[in-house]
Amino acid sequence: MADFFTAVPEPIPFEGPDSDNPLAFRWYDRDRVVGDKTLAEHLRLAVCYWHSFNWPGNDVFGDGTFDRPWLDPSLDPMAAARTKMAAAFEFVEKLGVPFFSFHDHDMAPYGGSFAEERAALDALTDEALGHMERTGIKLLWGTARLFHHPRYMAGAATNPDPEVFARAAAQVANCLDVTHKLGGANYVMWGGREGYETLLNTDMSRELDQLGRFIHMVVEHKHTIGFEGTLLIEPKPQEPTKHQYDYDSATIYGFLERHDLVDEVKVNIEVNHATLSGHDFAHEIATAVGLGIFGSVDANRGDDRLGWDTDQFPNSVDSMAPAVYEIIRGGGFETGGFMFDTKLRRMSIDRTDLFHGHIGGIDTLARAFLVAHAMWEDRALESLRDDRYAGWSGAEGQAIMRGERSLDDLRDRVTAEDLDPAPVSGAQEALETLVNRYIERVR
Amino acid sequence: MADFFTAVPEPIPFEGPDSDNPLAFRWYDRDRVVGDKTLAEHLRLAVCYWHSFNWPGNDVFGDGTFDRPWLDPSLDPMAAARTKMAAAFEFVEKLGVPFFSFHDHDMAPYGGSFAEERAALDALTDEALGHMERTGIKLLWGTARLFHHPRYMAGAATNPDPEVFARAAAQVANCLDVTHKLGGANYVMWGGREGYETLLNTDMSRELDQLGRFIHMVVEHKHTIGFEGTLLIEPKPQEPTKHQYDYDSATIYGFLERHDLVDEVKVNIEVNHATLSGHDFAHEIATAVGLGIFGSVDANRGDDRLGWDTDQFPNSVDSMAPAVYEIIRGGGFETGGFMFDTKLRRMSIDRTDLFHGHIGGIDTLARAFLVAHAMWEDRALESLRDDRYAGWSGAEGQAIMRGERSLDDLRDRVTAEDLDPAPVSGAQEALETLVNRYIERVR
Amino acid sequence: MADFFTAVPEPIPFEGPDSDNPLAFRWYDRDRVVGDKTLAEHLRLAVCYWHSFNWPGNDVFGDGTFDRPWLDPSLDPMAAARTKMAAAFEFVEKLGVPFFSFHDHDMAPYGGSFAEERAALDALTDEALGHMERTGIKLLWGTARLFHHPRYMAGAATNPDPEVFARAAAQVANCLDVTHKLGGANYVMWGGREGYETLLNTDMSRELDQLGRFIHMVVEHKHTIGFEGTLLIEPKPQEPTKHQYDYDSATIYGFLERHDLVDEVKVNIEVNHATLSGHDFAHEIATAVGLGIFGSVDANRGDDRLGWDTDQFPNSVDSMAPAVYEIIRGGGFETGGFMFDTKLRRMSIDRTDLFHGHIGGIDTLARAFLVAHAMWEDRALESLRDDRYAGWSGAEGQAIMRGERSLDDLRDRVTAEDLDPAPVSGAQEALETLVNRYIERVR
Amino acid sequence: MADFFTAVPEPIPFEGPDSDNPLAFRWYDRDRVVGDKTLAEHLRLAVCYWHSFNWPGNDVFGDGTFDRPWLDPSLDPMAAARTKMAAAFEFVEKLGVPFFSFHDHDMAPYGGSFAEERAALDALTDEALGHMERTGIKLLWGTARLFHHPRYMAGAATNPDPEVFARAAAQVANCLDVTHKLGGANYVMWGGREGYETLLNTDMSRELDQLGRFIHMVVEHKHTIGFEGTLLIEPKPQEPTKHQYDYDSATIYGFLERHDLVDEVKVNIEVNHATLSGHDFAHEIATAVGLGIFGSVDANRGDDRLGWDTDQFPNSVDSMAPAVYEIIRGGGFETGGFMFDTKLRRMSIDRTDLFHGHIGGIDTLARAFLVAHAMWEDRALESLRDDRYAGWSGAEGQAIMRGERSLDDLRDRVTAEDLDPAPVSGAQEALETLVNRYIERVR
Repeated sequence: MADFFTAVPEPIPFEGPDSDNPLAFRWYDRDRVVGDKTLAEHLRLAVCYWHSFNWPGNDVFGDGTFDRPWLDPSLDPMAAARTKMAAAFEFVEKLGVPFFSFHDHDMAPYGGSFAEERAALDALTDEALGHMERTGIKLLWGTARLFHHPRYMAGAATNPDPEVFARAAAQVANCLDVTHKLGGANYVMWGGREGYETLLNTDMSRELDQLGRFIHMVVEHKHTIGFEGTLLIEPKPQEPTKHQYDYDSATIYGFLERHDLVDEVKVNIEVNHATLSGHDFAHEIATAVGLGIFGSVDANRGDDRLGWDTDQFPNSVDSMAPAVYEIIRGGGFETGGFMFDTKLRRMSIDRTDLFHGHIGGIDTLARAFLVAHAMWEDRALESLRDDRYAGWSGAEGQAIMRGERSLDDLRDRVTAEDLDPAPVSGAQEALETLVNRYIERVR
Repeated sequence: MADFFTAVPEPIPFEGPDSDNPLAFRWYDRDRVVGDKTLAEHLRLAVCYWHSFNWPGNDVFGDGTFDRPWLDPSLDPMAAARTKMAAAFEFVEKLGVPFFSFHDHDMAPYGGSFAEERAALDALTDEALGHMERTGIKLLWGTARLFHHPRYMAGAATNPDPEVFARAAAQVANCLDVTHKLGGANYVMWGGREGYETLLNTDMSRELDQLGRFIHMVVEHKHTIGFEGTLLIEPKPQEPTKHQYDYDSATIYGFLERHDLVDEVKVNIEVNHATLSGHDFAHEIATAVGLGIFGSVDANRGDDRLGWDTDQFPNSVDSMAPAVYEIIRGGGFETGGFMFDTKLRRMSIDRTDLFHGHIGGIDTLARAFLVAHAMWEDRALESLRDDRYAGWSGAEGQAIMRGERSLDDLRDRVTAEDLDPAPVSGAQEALETLVNRYIERVR
Repeated sequence: MADFFTAVPEPIPFEGPDSDNPLAFRWYDRDRVVGDKTLAEHLRLAVCYWHSFNWPGNDVFGDGTFDRPWLDPSLDPMAAARTKMAAAFEFVEKLGVPFFSFHDHDMAPYGGSFAEERAALDALTDEALGHMERTGIKLLWGTARLFHHPRYMAGAATNPDPEVFARAAAQVANCLDVTHKLGGANYVMWGGREGYETLLNTDMSRELDQLGRFIHMVVEHKHTIGFEGTLLIEPKPQEPTKHQYDYDSATIYGFLERHDLVDEVKVNIEVNHATLSGHDFAHEIATAVGLGIFGSVDANRGDDRLGWDTDQFPNSVDSMAPAVYEIIRGGGFETGGFMFDTKLRRMSIDRTDLFHGHIGGIDTLARAFLVAHAMWEDRALESLRDDRYAGWSGAEGQAIMRGERSLDDLRDRVTAEDLDPAPVSGAQEALETLVNRYIERVR
Repeated sequence: MADFFTAVPEPIPFEGPDSDNPLAFRWYDRDRVVGDKTLAEHLRLAVCYWHSFNWPGNDVFGDGTFDRPWLDPSLDPMAAARTKMAAAFEFVEKLGVPFFSFHDHDMAPYGGSFAEERAALDALTDEALGHMERTGIKLLWGTARLFHHPRYMAGAATNPDPEVFARAAAQVANCLDVTHKLGGANYVMWGGREGYETLLNTDMSRELDQLGRFIHMVVEHKHTIGFEGTLLIEPKPQEPTKHQYDYDSATIYGFLERHDLVDEVKVNIEVNHATLSGHDFAHEIATAVGLGIFGSVDANRGDDRLGWDTDQFPNSVDSMAPAVYEIIRGGGFETGGFMFDTKLRRMSIDRTDLFHGHIGGIDTLARAFLVAHAMWEDRALESLRDDRYAGWSGAEGQAIMRGERSLDDLRDRVTAEDLDPAPVSGAQEALETLVNRYIERVR
């Protein structure tokens, strides 16, 4: 089959920071060893199937602008799906990243009975397996598209109709099976419309119980089929629904606790979803790490002036480095990775723009990683943090945390000593400059 | 002692909807029986000490504008505190609401040793007890001011210094003791600066563990002294810190689960804090009710265009009725109530403005309650909701929820029946109009 | 042709506030005389063609859900357009409002050469003329869809390519001609993509000059053809582009001043666009009225927690009354009116939901109008406002405003008199309660 | 007088990018020639008096935390003001920036009659003159504090009481006189409370006319006294008032046009005010440059998750470089400069933190300038921009812009040629990566 990205005939090379070649990496030297692993092993980069290959560049106010010939509805669906897949694997291979991710219905067309849709999915994932074997590209995660079809307009697992729940369950069973077949490292649940438009017609508690039940069924199925990847929920606060139940990492943690799922499910944090929920990306990482549910990352950012999901390519090391630092501080990825759930701007209509977006984003992540890793190795922030909390390593601090002090004990001590500790500078500005020093010096 | 609010010589009367008297209630007929209780018993209204009596009307850009003579720093602190208290009880009595709420250091001055501050607090709460006995006014809740003094600039329970933790613990011990003495129905913990300014100097997990320990100590102390009121945490997403740990009800639920505190602590939801966290007030109520942690309410609203806590008096039944409906749907208040944690606008400098704000706010709550109660009694929304979820009462729906169906079971059924349920209208616009009908007709 | 909305066989009647019939007006009694005009004459209500008849209910995350058979792409485009038109006029006639509004390409299909598209537009607007004559329905405004086709992805008038500008000019010439033919009361320019995604590739000053030139050409064309309606620009701050040039009314005023267009162009203010730009709807009205550029209104509201254009039906008199008050205070509509640029929620899939949304919205506007008109007639707010600014009617105040005082003059006076005026209460809470009294009592 | 900042005994040196000394500049090499000027001449850096020396570190929820002994209210006001001034000039001199800025009442105390306040201001500005002569430090701008005193609670120029207007006029006369005496390069008007809390009590048009009159008086006074600095208005959208009239640059432009002030007044853009108004800082710069009203900059940033003015030190070159680029593209500063209207975080309580904040911020600006200047010199963005708009240099493009084409002309051409131009990629992702290359390579 002929190449689609003919303007990029060869794999994207690493040429180092001094290169002016826009179709080369300046920072992502995949085999560079940093600490105990290569950059490729640390970052575990993935390209997404949907926005990059299955989205025509439409928005609410306009039709698609992109050159994606396989989306022509007059084509034979299965042939078009195979053309799309060939282009997708060509892209990932030329880009040189180890992983891809997919939705069932981005890879396989709608149409016919449920059984026929399953057959199409089987055929196309078999074809994908061939591409994977040929290229060495692996699957970071699969996921079911439970939000696009009108039947899911009121949610999938949280639908008021148990038959929709059943249909969604069947679809997830299929999608988890093929994710397992493709050796996926994770399986992601994004609650596309698991939420509500108005409380006036919604029984939120009931719907959350349905969601708990649904996820338990997914967990059971995973174990039944022997899938060893990680199950992930992707937080998002709103859009498309007014309120999505998987609002942010802290909300999901409470949900998992309530439904005894904490040991079975982690989170896939998206930069743009984090900021839409009012949190810095770094905060969401630190929260998930602290609660033991950090899993994976969608690296696409938002625009800080806009109130919807713009899904832009990351391009600021200043913004990304503090979040990558929290990942490293938490021990790095296990089965997760950095996935590009990114959308090209609707005006970026050249085929090559898909390379520009990914190269710029990958170099941003690579550079942010090098910055954060150096800060971590030097214990530059950690030694100051240790000093700041040093009192808690003292006898009294430890006694308090062991539960050996009551309010009365502490009141007695405060009264006796008239204890009034002097505050200590938080040094925020100095710390911000310290981080900048690492950013400036990275090589 | 002479009256302070001399322009309002008598208690505010109820005069009914046709009254033009701005110093009368048009809706809050406290003895009106609605369902099984009076309006006063349903609403459990409370006035706050701090914004209404201890705040001079300053903001970040300007000095105080209000006529609060007891705040003159040249006065003797204890005498000034007694004058303030007399005015406060005069106000609550004339307004005719059953409850007040206080911070320790709004009632009692700073100054001297810890023991001396305790003595001042004891003396002034004894004086308050006298006012309470004289007037019949009760205490909805007390709370400790753990955010104002520079020693708490980096948090109280979550401070990097265990000695600050100890000081805070001692202060809470005192405050809980006097709340108990005054027969408080609840005790509130608002984590004024329990949060962070920057992750660069913060160990969030450690700080959250400290907070968990602190609250356990408060629970233990409550039981030790025999306080039977409810312990409440008040969610707020940010301000004064960049990120407050008690972000919203869902976040607090997860925290309580993690620290085995779900049975001991509930939430005190503020309208303005809800909206700052990205949630409608009704959503926060429904979330807390659904998770079993709904406790009490601060009724002050924000401005939907502004990004900070404006603490305005509620004045829209359209906005308030859906949230009050969720309270009624959840069974109403137990120990909680509607507290006015409201700030007059800085330009509302007449003494009488404090009455105008409260009367308008109380009538808004009373009218919203009547609307919501009528909707509930008529089952206007509930019968439609029952219809919408009726499928879940069927055999299959119940089997799913009892855990008797696996993904495979449901897939088999979907495949066999080619199950593809038709979606049903959510009818949001019709429901919104239905609610309006109740709002229009309330009498 | 058979009716489409068969569940609503008759025109929607007015039944008054006590009616429980959801398919009746409770407040919109079109012939009720209020002041010097009927309610119909005051409100000048209009239904939009696009969201109500040409939108399938899709969003960024999902396909259309609505029952709009004429949108089937396998139909003959002209026949489908005629079916759509018949349904639209059936709806407007049954709803009983006097106006509709349209985009060229919602009424007429794309396809073929520019001349062929013109011919289709001519044919279909001729057909519309027939419907208008038959039913008495009039055109509030027409507008050209300059944002949907990929050719306009980088703007129409502000496109970097003058050929796109030319194509847009040609399209607007056509659309203005047919708007004139249909007797439109106004012509609206919404700068769908007149804005930018990134400054990195944008020459903002140049683009704004292009826009100024474009609008001058539209003004000239209007006069050439003798169109006597009002030209309107519709402000919107962002979406679809990151930054739209017609950000808000104040921005447009400056643009019109800069390009000598103030006497020729007014604004069409949308509630949801106002709030997205950080302004209350009432503020945008008051701004436009004060600057002399108030024209018309799109009545659809947003959701105060969401950062995108939700285009919901208005349903809160509390929110709407203060804005309608500003319209009345400014003298009411001349050629403008209240247009429903509203979108049903994607789950409102019954054909009847389109009636529910409009009836609820229209009753909200009617009731808000009655409230605001009563406040205006009573001079309830105006007399207090007059008092507040009374000083400016004094000799000194007038001398200052006539330019007869310099800084030195005023300094001399302040120094001589040691002038230090006492502040006066702004009475905001009392005023808010006063407004509520009008809302409660409207009949 | 003894030094206050004893931990910084010497001026801050420039040590270059490799220095680890936190009390040295790594990028701000003031004498480095870039293009035609030194860095110091390009950046024109200024320290502010108020937040840095007159603010105790209080916020709405807590008392001051900073070590500013001169703010002790028990001190003699004039002596305290002199101590404060000595510390301020010590700081600016040690920091090594050329300018400072001041509010009248940050430098001179309140108290006594208007004449006495004037005398205090004269005495202290005389003292400042001595410091300026001694150190060579110059005044970037002065401004009057018209928002802090309760008399201005309802605005200064826009107050409903003309006597407040008069008092404000007198104060500005004084402040402009002393700014002139100190050789100020500009005079700034920040409309602290020129706005409203509620439209219910506000006559917006009248207030805006008052503001127009006021500024005309300032212009006249400027010319009367021979002040040759630039008059600047500082946009801010809200806070402290709900709506500030000087919302953003585009709004101010319209206001200036309406009141014939465009030739006399420019804008002083603050980063944090820009983002609060929904605009990127770069957008506000580009807007003001395009409209011919760009004057000066307050360099302090906000927090993209927070809805109030946090006034943080700039610390991201990624964020700042695109805005500095727009300044350079517009020709750079004339009388304006980069002013640090910054607030230390309330926890940054060490005296040295004031240096850390400024050094980090200054190095961020210096580095951003070097990046932006290199991009400008290389015409890296400009050559691409020229290509993108090349069509407008053609005959047809120029004819359109000269007003030689009507809608009819263009329609004829489009019809005749069936003109349907193909869209061209906007290349946003590639451009963002191009900018990053400049950021990475700056030295």
